[in-house]
Amino acid sequence: MHPGSVGSSRQGRTSKGVDCARGDSRLAVGRPCASALLGPDRFAGSFFPFREVVQERLYLDNIAIYHRHIAPRVSGRREKRLEVVRSVDPRRAEEFGPELSEISTVEVGDVVARSRVAGDLIGRLGPVVVADGLRRAADALDAESATLAELADDEVALGVPRLLGEIARTTGQLRLFAGLVARGEHLGVTTSDLPAGAPGGSLRKVNIPLGVVVVFAASNFPFAFSVAGGDTASALAAGNPVIVKAHYGHPQTSQRVAELVTEALVAAGLPADSLQVVHGGERVGLELVRHPDVAAVGFTGSTAGGRALTDVAASRKIPIPVYAEQGSVNPMVIAPSAITACAPGEARQLAESVLSGHGQFCTKPGVVFVPDDAADEFVALLRGEMAQAVDMHLLTTKIHEQFRKAVAALGRHPDVEVWAGETSGAGLSAPGVVAVADVDTYLAVPDLRAEIFGPATVVIRVRDSADLVRALDAVEGNLTATVHGDAGDRWLALAIERLVRRVGRIVYGGVPTGVAVDRAMHHGGPYPASSWSLYTSVGDDAIKRFMRPIVYQDFPDTLLPEALRA
Amino acid sequence: MHPGSVGSSRQGRTSKGVDCARGDSRLAVGRPCASALLGPDRFAGSFFPFREVVQERLYLDNIAIYHRHIAPRVSGRREKRLEVVRSVDPRRAEEFGPELSEISTVEVGDVVARSRVAGDLIGRLGPVVVADGLRRAADALDAESATLAELADDEVALGVPRLLGEIARTTGQLRLFAGLVARGEHLGVTTSDLPAGAPGGSLRKVNIPLGVVVVFAASNFPFAFSVAGGDTASALAAGNPVIVKAHYGHPQTSQRVAELVTEALVAAGLPADSLQVVHGGERVGLELVRHPDVAAVGFTGSTAGGRALTDVAASRKIPIPVYAEQGSVNPMVIAPSAITACAPGEARQLAESVLSGHGQFCTKPGVVFVPDDAADEFVALLRGEMAQAVDMHLLTTKIHEQFRKAVAALGRHPDVEVWAGETSGAGLSAPGVVAVADVDTYLAVPDLRAEIFGPATVVIRVRDSADLVRALDAVEGNLTATVHGDAGDRWLALAIERLVRRVGRIVYGGVPTGVAVDRAMHHGGPYPASSWSLYTSVGDDAIKRFMRPIVYQDFPDTLLPEALRA
Repeated sequence: MHPGSVGSSRQGRTSKGVDCARGDSRLAVGRPCASALLGPDRFAGSFFPFREVVQERLYLDNIAIYHRHIAPRVSGRREKRLEVVRSVDPRRAEEFGPELSEISTVEVGDVVARSRVAGDLIGRLGPVVVADGLRRAADALDAESATLAELADDEVALGVPRLLGEIARTTGQLRLFAGLVARGEHLGVTTSDLPAGAPGGSLRKVNIPLGVVVVFAASNFPFAFSVAGGDTASALAAGNPVIVKAHYGHPQTSQRVAELVTEALVAAGLPADSLQVVHGGERVGLELVRHPDVAAVGFTGSTAGGRALTDVAASRKIPIPVYAEQGSVNPMVIAPSAITACAPGEARQLAESVLSGHGQFCTKPGVVFVPDDAADEFVALLRGEMAQAVDMHLLTTKIHEQFRKAVAALGRHPDVEVWAGETSGAGLSAPGVVAVADVDTYLAVPDLRAEIFGPATVVIRVRDSADLVRALDAVEGNLTATVHGDAGDRWLALAIERLVRRVGRIVYGGVPTGVAVDRAMHHGGPYPASSWSLYTSVGDDAIKRFMRPIVYQDFPDTLLPEALRA
Repeated sequence: MHPGSVGSSRQGRTSKGVDCARGDSRLAVGRPCASALLGPDRFAGSFFPFREVVQERLYLDNIAIYHRHIAPRVSGRREKRLEVVRSVDPRRAEEFGPELSEISTVEVGDVVARSRVAGDLIGRLGPVVVADGLRRAADALDAESATLAELADDEVALGVPRLLGEIARTTGQLRLFAGLVARGEHLGVTTSDLPAGAPGGSLRKVNIPLGVVVVFAASNFPFAFSVAGGDTASALAAGNPVIVKAHYGHPQTSQRVAELVTEALVAAGLPADSLQVVHGGERVGLELVRHPDVAAVGFTGSTAGGRALTDVAASRKIPIPVYAEQGSVNPMVIAPSAITACAPGEARQLAESVLSGHGQFCTKPGVVFVPDDAADEFVALLRGEMAQAVDMHLLTTKIHEQFRKAVAALGRHPDVEVWAGETSGAGLSAPGVVAVADVDTYLAVPDLRAEIFGPATVVIRVRDSADLVRALDAVEGNLTATVHGDAGDRWLALAIERLVRRVGRIVYGGVPTGVAVDRAMHHGGPYPASSWSLYTSVGDDAIKRFMRPIVYQDFPDTLLPEALRA
């Protein structure tokens, strides 16, 4: 731990009292960064202690995988030429902790084979056992949340409060899917008894698991989109065995979460190989996606990374789905009526949203369209807000390098005005960045339209509604869009009409960061925001990605699976 | 029309009275081919006359597309070097009727552009108008069903009774989706009001159309999987404009259906470009799938054809989904208990299923696993049944050629015993074919495991349950599997366990042909049966392929789309 550096960089800054009274609830100013991110999580407060481990249900043989496969690497004994993964402290840009080896090609085959066997066992054990395992996993993570948050903070420097919130979100997700599975909702049972003599007299439809699911963990959510995150929780809940490729940005956190979750699954009676966590780079990832026994892939990361996996999956003899949640710029339109009413409030909530997770959220508002005549004042206010964040460190050396390059590239365009705040100067530190340009420049400069992963946003000066439409027509597929303005504002109507076609979620009068884990959530969007706009990676429906329907026609009751019997 | 050749080739053959009394209902012997195919369709009997065309609602300008784009081709005036499509009479292997030109590259762009405009209009008109259009289309097809069936019979030689049944199925589908849309079920509205202060306080989720959908019509169902078939009906119902690439096997039927449906849609107030039908070969198909404004593709045809489109769609800058219903062998296992009880009944119902649609069904049982010791008797019975079909003609010259080649290839394998029935010898005639081999040969000869499109089936002699498992483990993804046997039969349990993993529908004691249009249906399966095993191309859920969710977060009621207002 690094005393004094825990907690969000936004913590403790003073509220300037610029709240503007309005009829809507969109100006939730002054809330700390962690809650702006995850909100008062509806799953928080469930910090159950890790309960009894029912010894006789332990699959002791299977637990041995950890000692066979992970322990040797931790102790430094590695296969020849395999890459080493090691934690980096973003606050000092220094490696620390044990060396973890990526797995070899032989081990990839071994892991997948074991996963298949685990899948068969899970199928026989049934959803009640799976639900129990998910709940126990949640309990185990909650019981060790303080230690986990500190461990993760050393690796990702997002601050302990935010990471505690993220753990609560993660365990909430595990319990949500446990409930869904326990109630059998995921099975989607549909039955019909057609008239006698018709084909398909009796039809019994039920969802079944796809098979081995490979999950690529995200850099920016070491818990909620990582080893025990939404992809894993939903794939496991659906009855699939899961292999997680841990993100190199937080290998130790990934290891510890894997250990806790596996212990919990085993305690519930599930095979230890229900969840396997591996380390490695591109080679390991591609080998997993190419493996003929892998049935589906979940991914959270860059558009380039997602596309590489999707291309490989599509070129297989038997193509498989890759559910990739990729890049998103998350356009925001602040219509004249909104900025006139309360420019300081607009600037503050935008800054908070941009700086959440140090700008490393998939829902960060990366481009903001504002009326030209109000732009100078708004940009000054925004810079003032952004300037207060001086202790941000990015997740990895690569992300840090890409952020610096992206900001530098914008600075080289003569028609783009780039401002950057201060930094601590240490480690992978990064300043808040605001770039400003007009619509012509926005249309001419691809760098302005690309996602910049880090605490930067682009403000586009819009002269009139025709200018707005030209700009919005250049916007690609996104996870979210946000619109601010009064109902009668022409900009608002135009923005909604244009943006609905391009996003999976449209927010009125708030910020896009803060993604509720809910049945009415959709976290996905037209390409490149996600590889399949039909699916969500957050909320109840995430489970639908990992099941397929099968119909039993004219089956006698005794031969039907339990869920379909009369 | 060819007097004397209308009707199914199986019509009028005598029932031999081999019905075996059994507790289950699987031996529906002696029913004519058309009903074995489509069954007493639950939508039949709704032959409404084509009602008033409300003149003032006609989009006369749009109707002109037919005169601009289709009429010139019909009259023989074509662009240089464009291919010509012309009907072929399968009973004589002779061309007849007008020459239709494939569309040029420029026209592809034109058609897609028009489709986009139509899509915007459909969105503004809303689901009530769409439902009305679908119902009117159904009425129009029913009103002209006799003429349509005769026209189609000239092109596909499937017999008027079967084609009348198929039209009823088609109009039933149109009405089913009309009802679904009128009730708003397709919108999947899901709402949540989360605790105050939480992110996403109010979430309103609704499905919206994907955009321009391209449908590749099938050869084997000139109505139900063609211009106004399931893909078109579900895509239109979802609110998407549709472009159908007509199948060259029945161009005139496609033209006439397009005219009737367009008139009906226009009468309902929908734009004429809601549905556009084009002719052409591979170039036209690929240009459509590559077009940046195309959002999704429906396809019914061969695995090679589906894969070509899927590969192109996956390689686009913005990949799009291709819902391809491809090849399927539809394995059937007749366990010892079933064949002992009633070999003649088993043989008869298998023959009927194999010969349905002259063996050109995607659900044709193409391989049958039978106990070795009963195989001789069973094969003799099966040949006896198959021998009665002597007047079968295949759909197209290409299909005819491929069938001949596939059968000849089997005949060249020394360990495969091939029997073929008689044919009329005229046109694209084809005999019933039964190939017999043991499990070792099945595993060694890929030709035995491949789909043969036409009236052929492969009988595999299985020595014991270990032999059965070896064979079934070599089975690829299929639309269906069928199992016959008593509940206590070990073969049955093994077959179900093995086949469930490989199919989208498993039938007990019946035949896989005859796909009910129902909410509990799933017509899809693991690759290569379909490109995405999660989706069905038959039944209510088919509409899910052509919509994506979007969430409105914290929107005031007045700004929400109508379906989401309080």
